[in-house]
Amino acid sequence: MAMGLKETVSNAYSPWMDDDAPETDVVISSRARLARSLAAFPFPQRLSPEKAEQVVHAVALAIREPAFSSRFDPELVRLAELAPVERWMLVEKHLISPGFVTAQHIGDQQKGLVLSADEQLSIMVNEEDHLRIQALFPGLQPAAAVRLADEADTILEKTLDFAFSERIGYVTACPTNVGTGLRVSVMLHLPALVLLERVKEILTTVTKLGLTVRGLFGEGTESAGHLFQLSNQVTLGPSEADIVSKLETITRQVIDQERTARNQLRTQMPAVVRDRISRAFGILRHAYVLGSDEVMRLLSDVRLGVGMGFLKGIRPRLLTELMVQTRATYLVKTSGRQLSPPERGVFRAALVRQAFKDIVIDD
Amino acid sequence: MAMGLKETVSNAYSPWMDDDAPETDVVISSRARLARSLAAFPFPQRLSPEKAEQVVHAVALAIREPAFSSRFDPELVRLAELAPVERWMLVEKHLISPGFVTAQHIGDQQKGLVLSADEQLSIMVNEEDHLRIQALFPGLQPAAAVRLADEADTILEKTLDFAFSERIGYVTACPTNVGTGLRVSVMLHLPALVLLERVKEILTTVTKLGLTVRGLFGEGTESAGHLFQLSNQVTLGPSEADIVSKLETITRQVIDQERTARNQLRTQMPAVVRDRISRAFGILRHAYVLGSDEVMRLLSDVRLGVGMGFLKGIRPRLLTELMVQTRATYLVKTSGRQLSPPERGVFRAALVRQAFKDIVIDD
Repeated sequence: MAMGLKETVSNAYSPWMDDDAPETDVVISSRARLARSLAAFPFPQRLSPEKAEQVVHAVALAIREPAFSSRFDPELVRLAELAPVERWMLVEKHLISPGFVTAQHIGDQQKGLVLSADEQLSIMVNEEDHLRIQALFPGLQPAAAVRLADEADTILEKTLDFAFSERIGYVTACPTNVGTGLRVSVMLHLPALVLLERVKEILTTVTKLGLTVRGLFGEGTESAGHLFQLSNQVTLGPSEADIVSKLETITRQVIDQERTARNQLRTQMPAVVRDRISRAFGILRHAYVLGSDEVMRLLSDVRLGVGMGFLKGIRPRLLTELMVQTRATYLVKTSGRQLSPPERGVFRAALVRQAFKDIVIDD
Repeated sequence: MAMGLKETVSNAYSPWMDDDAPETDVVISSRARLARSLAAFPFPQRLSPEKAEQVVHAVALAIREPAFSSRFDPELVRLAELAPVERWMLVEKHLISPGFVTAQHIGDQQKGLVLSADEQLSIMVNEEDHLRIQALFPGLQPAAAVRLADEADTILEKTLDFAFSERIGYVTACPTNVGTGLRVSVMLHLPALVLLERVKEILTTVTKLGLTVRGLFGEGTESAGHLFQLSNQVTLGPSEADIVSKLETITRQVIDQERTARNQLRTQMPAVVRDRISRAFGILRHAYVLGSDEVMRLLSDVRLGVGMGFLKGIRPRLLTELMVQTRATYLVKTSGRQLSPPERGVFRAALVRQAFKDIVIDD
C-alpha cells in the first residue's frame, strides 16, 4: 500500500468537510452512492474466497485503465492491510461503511477500498454489492456528487460487465437498491429545529414526502450533534435526475425551516441562546475531561453559534474535523495506544483545548 | 455626608479583600467585634427616639476627639442618608449587619455608622448594642483585628462611659456578649473539604471545641461559595487573648485539613479537579446568563484553582470582589435601575465576562 492512503487514514480532515461550499451553514455534506454488481459473479454474500479475489482483481485492473487512473489517481487497499483502528477511522471519515468492516462473509483480504487522491471518490469492493461507488462533496451539492459517481461508473463500465436488466435497470444484492442503484444523501445540522422541538414534526413530513431520515454519528443516540441524514427511499422508477431534484428541493425546504428557527431563537431568546453557545465554546476551550456525547453536543452548539454569527474566528470545517478526531477510534490512533474510557476523556479534552487555544472570541 | 462614604458604598472592593496577607489560600478575612453599651442609656431595644439621637450625638462627639479622628480619619453616616440599595451594599461588604438595616425599634435617622477612611474600622451605633466596634482584616489576622478594635475602644472609653461591671465585665444587651463583649471570627474557603465530603465532620469537631460555625453569603444555602465563618461561642470567662489564641489554633488546624484535602485532590483525581476548575473559569469567562448561586459556586471553583496553582494570572481579591459585585444589590446599583431576575442574570454575566476578559490562562 502506498503512503498516500496511510496518510489519508491518519488525517481526520477530508475535503467533504470544507466549508467553502453552498449552504454550509446547514448542510455539512452531500453524497451519491451507486450500487453495481458484476454479471459474472454471485453476490458477495455467496462468493467463495477465490471468486471474491477475482472480483478484487477485476476492479484493480479496471481502475488502472488510463481513462480512470488519469481522472481519479486512485489507490486500492485491502482491509487486511489496515490495522483494525485504521479501518474504523475510515468509517468515522465516512469513506467506508461500518458493515464493510464487520461483515464476516468475505475475508478482509478480499475487501477492497479504492480511493481517489482527493478523497472525493471511493469504491468499496465486495461490500453488500461487488462495487459501491461513492462520491462525497462538502455542502449542498447532490447533483455534483451524482455527476462524479456517474463519471466513475461510466468509465468502469467500459471494462467491467455490470449486471443490468432492460426491464428493471441495475441488478443489486438487495432489492431496495435495484434500478438506478443510486442513493443520494445530505447531512444536515439542525440544532435550532431541535432546540425549538420542531425537528420531529419536520422530519416526519420529510419521510412522508419519500425521503429516509436518520441520525448520524453514534448508534442509539439518533441525533448526536444534531446531525441528520436525508436520502431517497426509492431507487427504482424515477430517473437519477428526478431523485436528485426531489432530494434537493425538500432539503432546501428543511434548510429554510432551520434558518427560520435560528432567526426565531435570535429574536425570542437571544440571551439564552447566546449563553448556551458561548458556554459551549468556553467549556470546549477549557475542559480537561470531555465525554464523547458531550463533545458532540458542544461542537453542535458552537457550530450553531458560528452559523448565527455569534462566534467569529471559527471555521465550520474545524468543527467537523473535531467531530471525527474526537471519536474513540481517532483518539486511540492519535495517542498511539489503547486508552481506558477515563483516559479517553482526558485525551479528547486535550485535543479540543489545543484546537481552540488560539481562537479569539470577540465578545 | 461626605463623598468618601458614598464612594465606599459604591465600590465593591474593600481592604479586607486583599490577598497580600497571611494564609489567603484558605482564609479570606478576620474580624473582631466589640459590643459596648453606654451606661447612661437603656439598651437600643428600649430607647426613645430622643435618647437614641443622644446616643448618636455622643458617638459623633467622641469620634471627633483628636486622639480618635487623627488615628482613624472617621466618617459618620446615618442610615437615613443612604438609599435602601446602598444600605444593602454595606451589608454585602460586611461593614454592617443585615439586622441593622431591618431593625424596626430604631429609626433610620438614629442608626449611625462610623467608618474609618481605610474601611478597617467600622462602628454601628444603635444596633443591638449602642456601639458595635468592628475591625476587619484580610487573611488570618484575628490578633491584629482585636488589637485595632481594642485601640478604638480604649480611645472611645476616654470620652464615653461604657457600662462595665467588675464582676462580669462589659454589660451588653444580649447575655451572650457579656464579659469581653468580643466576637472574633475568620471567614474560610473550604472547597476541597466540601468536595471530599469531609467538611461536615470537621466543622462538627470545631463546634465541639467551642467555636460557632456558619455559612456565609446567602441565607438558606449554608455554604454558598464554600465559605464558612468560625467564631468564638463564649465571651464571658476567658480573656481576649485566650479567645483569639483558641480561635487561631483551631483555625490553623482547619487550614491544614483543607490543604491536605487539596493535595489529596491533586494526587487522587487530578483530571477531575482540574476539569472542574478550568470549566468554571471557561463558563465565567464566556457565559451570557449567570444565576446568583451558580456564580458563587463557579467563583469558588476558580478560587480553588488559584489556590492549587492551576489557574495563574487571577488574583484572589478579584474573586472576592466579584462575589460581592454579583449580588443582586450591587447589580441594581451598578445598572442604575431595578432589574427583573432574568435581566439580573444577563447583567451579572456581562460583569463577570468583563472582569475575566483580559485574563490569560496558561493551559
